[in-house]
Amino acid sequence: MLVDGGLELLEEHEAWALLRAGVVGRVGVTIGAMPAIFPVNYAVLDDDAVVFRTAPGSKLSAAASDAVVAFEVDDYDRADRSGWSVLVVGRSEVVHDLDVTRKVLAADLEPYADGTRTSIVRIRPVFVSGRRIVREEPPGGA
Amino acid sequence: MLVDGGLELLEEHEAWALLRAGVVGRVGVTIGAMPAIFPVNYAVLDDDAVVFRTAPGSKLSAAASDAVVAFEVDDYDRADRSGWSVLVVGRSEVVHDLDVTRKVLAADLEPYADGTRTSIVRIRPVFVSGRRIVREEPPGGA
Repeated sequence: MLVDGGLELLEEHEAWALLRAGVVGRVGVTIGAMPAIFPVNYAVLDDDAVVFRTAPGSKLSAAASDAVVAFEVDDYDRADRSGWSVLVVGRSEVVHDLDVTRKVLAADLEPYADGTRTSIVRIRPVFVSGRRIVREEPPGGA
Repeated sequence: MLVDGGLELLEEHEAWALLRAGVVGRVGVTIGAMPAIFPVNYAVLDDDAVVFRTAPGSKLSAAASDAVVAFEVDDYDRADRSGWSVLVVGRSEVVHDLDVTRKVLAADLEPYADGTRTSIVRIRPVFVSGRRIVREEPPGGA
């Protein structure tokens, strides 16, 4: 177990398992030279692509067209101060491929928000990493 | 109420209230021309600065030194598919000011992870926006 500053670096297969199990992630893009982060409902397709739906013509749709983006998923428990996060970096594109559209529809990827979200963004991960909070036992135990 | 694609744009004071009430947020930075998003425990000081602690010499500390960064906070309920998010864009810097250090310590800003996190990063927001999922009543009601 590799520990870095109180954070255990996850094995890549563990990071993928957490990524596949997630529902809401955050995508980091650049809009007019300014960074932005937006939450999205997402799914991971069987070819490891991360996909989400957005509104055609939206800022997010434009920013994710042929860009390098970050995608993050995490979960924290405030009570016991535990948690993990997974970071993906990859190339994103707006997909017009019917086969991908069929997979996205089959993945039951329904955005929480109402509104027309017919634009499909696909991120092809080139780098996936994960971290989990590890806690040292208090000296002397409880 | 301004609604944009199923998302209600929050009033700025609502966004600030959610930001002040949060505990874990995500900071979006650029590391070696690649985007990255990291979760952090944070606090909002009384001068509206967002502050978090990180390890001196860490990638995050370096990336947040005199940079323009995004900072995001959100909360979602999977059961009723409700949720909100707040996005901050601002200039970040590593702070060596004793007065700020005193305020950060007073804010009881304890990172969840163990390890030496003595570097204080401050983000001065220049842009704050918030969105909340709104759901149309189904036609004809329940």
